[in-house]
Amino acid sequence: MRKIVVALGGNALGHSPLDQIEKVKHAVKPIVELVKDGNEVILAHGNGPQVGMINLSFETSHELNSANPEMPFPECGAMSQGYIGYHLQNALLKELREQGMDQKVATIVTQVEVDEHDPAFLHPTKPIGRFYDLDTAKELESTKGYQMIEDANRGYRRVVPSPKPVNIVELDIIKTLVDAGHLVITVGGGGIPVIASGKEYVGVPAVIDKDFASAKLAELLDADMLVILTAVDKVKINFNKPNEISLDSATISELDKYIAEGHFLKGSMLPKIEAAKAFVNGSSHRIAIIASLDHARDALQGKSGTKITN
Amino acid sequence: MRKIVVALGGNALGHSPLDQIEKVKHAVKPIVELVKDGNEVILAHGNGPQVGMINLSFETSHELNSANPEMPFPECGAMSQGYIGYHLQNALLKELREQGMDQKVATIVTQVEVDEHDPAFLHPTKPIGRFYDLDTAKELESTKGYQMIEDANRGYRRVVPSPKPVNIVELDIIKTLVDAGHLVITVGGGGIPVIASGKEYVGVPAVIDKDFASAKLAELLDADMLVILTAVDKVKINFNKPNEISLDSATISELDKYIAEGHFLKGSMLPKIEAAKAFVNGSSHRIAIIASLDHARDALQGKSGTKITN
Repeated sequence: MRKIVVALGGNALGHSPLDQIEKVKHAVKPIVELVKDGNEVILAHGNGPQVGMINLSFETSHELNSANPEMPFPECGAMSQGYIGYHLQNALLKELREQGMDQKVATIVTQVEVDEHDPAFLHPTKPIGRFYDLDTAKELESTKGYQMIEDANRGYRRVVPSPKPVNIVELDIIKTLVDAGHLVITVGGGGIPVIASGKEYVGVPAVIDKDFASAKLAELLDADMLVILTAVDKVKINFNKPNEISLDSATISELDKYIAEGHFLKGSMLPKIEAAKAFVNGSSHRIAIIASLDHARDALQGKSGTKITN
Repeated sequence: MRKIVVALGGNALGHSPLDQIEKVKHAVKPIVELVKDGNEVILAHGNGPQVGMINLSFETSHELNSANPEMPFPECGAMSQGYIGYHLQNALLKELREQGMDQKVATIVTQVEVDEHDPAFLHPTKPIGRFYDLDTAKELESTKGYQMIEDANRGYRRVVPSPKPVNIVELDIIKTLVDAGHLVITVGGGGIPVIASGKEYVGVPAVIDKDFASAKLAELLDADMLVILTAVDKVKINFNKPNEISLDSATISELDKYIAEGHFLKGSMLPKIEAAKAFVNGSSHRIAIIASLDHARDALQGKSGTKITN
């Protein structure tokens, strides 16, 4: 039995609760296929559109009436784990039952530790929340210490750092459940980012890339495989050019060459490649696959996706 | 080793994230004391003020801008489990470490099944969300099918049913973690209320009383004890009268007599008594205790609280 961490993109989950409850029905099918094929699956997922929606709703509501509290970003992430996990675990349970399996499903509210000295904290890059005009942006910088950037010509947005995951606080919990044969949903949205401070963990406003968090999870669980599900069937070089090539497989050194040549889009395919590399690096038995959600099973059978090995 | 389900009131958790992060530091101390004394503790908690705040923020934000989605009540409950669980698990972990224990803590996003034929669905009683004027209340009744009542002379509010819990969907998950020695936070806010429909569970707008959900959890886990923590030290009869008596202990038949005599306030002490009764009923080895948060340890040593037996 192979142990597989599957990373599902937040864009596969929809922008509203009604949208999400429909989309998860579709998203869980290929995941349950992997379970049915005898794999031990651990599910990680993104939360970009969802945590944005939660954050924006609290911001809007607080601006209208200050009696409605502001919601810090780590708490918004924790809410998104409950919100997405509830729909995912429900849809997974139904699909498992329909496929004749009696596995149980758990969503674990998961904190992921980052290093407070991570250089990412000096260079916040991840835009979150709503757009503001320049004056409001300046005011938020001076009153709240936010870092603001102009984004997509639509105005100014807050940016937060995207540090690398160094540990998963609830790892033993996840291991216990996986070893008992349960299907675990964890590190939602890359996990709630926390830093260690003495004997406690403290939430920080940051976004951990969900593919990096999934790679860290796969490493700590000593998984056989990391499957990153996205909207495209394969990793491509010379993307959108006449000489575009879809990769069936690639080694780390081949990927390093392609990265140096600038083939992969920052904030899109590049972090997936980096996460895949981080997982397989230095281990001959580990495999990472980047594939489309709809062809997950095909990808595990070598008929789709890009297979990344050491 | 005794297995103890502890039910913590949502009012002990505060009304905003900053308030909650402070309050949980205090609330976890007596719970960790019980762990230190060698008990196997499972923590349930309320979410009244918190799910109200979440629901209200989404309502306000949606009213201002319909692009911000409405958030159905079960989804608000799922968010509250993530939000409260994150703070509780963090505070518990810190307090456990400070007390020299290395137990791990897990928050489980928990669905509690209710019976769609529960008579409570015919008589919604639980007010949720914001206050409206009469015209808006009438409009919500006709457009959304909400049931509205006049509440506390402050206007009209939506009411949802408060059905009884019949099963806990994630029970096997909870058992696996408890058996492995982890501290589990579950049935937050009484659980996300779902009804079984074929092979799936469907969320319903309802509020399951957290003390009833805790009693059901204690029953299904075959716990030795249910400890309901609240703001008062003991159950009282002739409450607030010159002949007020604090009860050190009571049997089910004694409580039934007091209930018939109208000693316990509906929506306040009465559901705690009913939940305690439901747990100990018919079992000579089960004990329920109603006590104040600050005297939880004393209550287990018989020095505080009201002990309820069959």
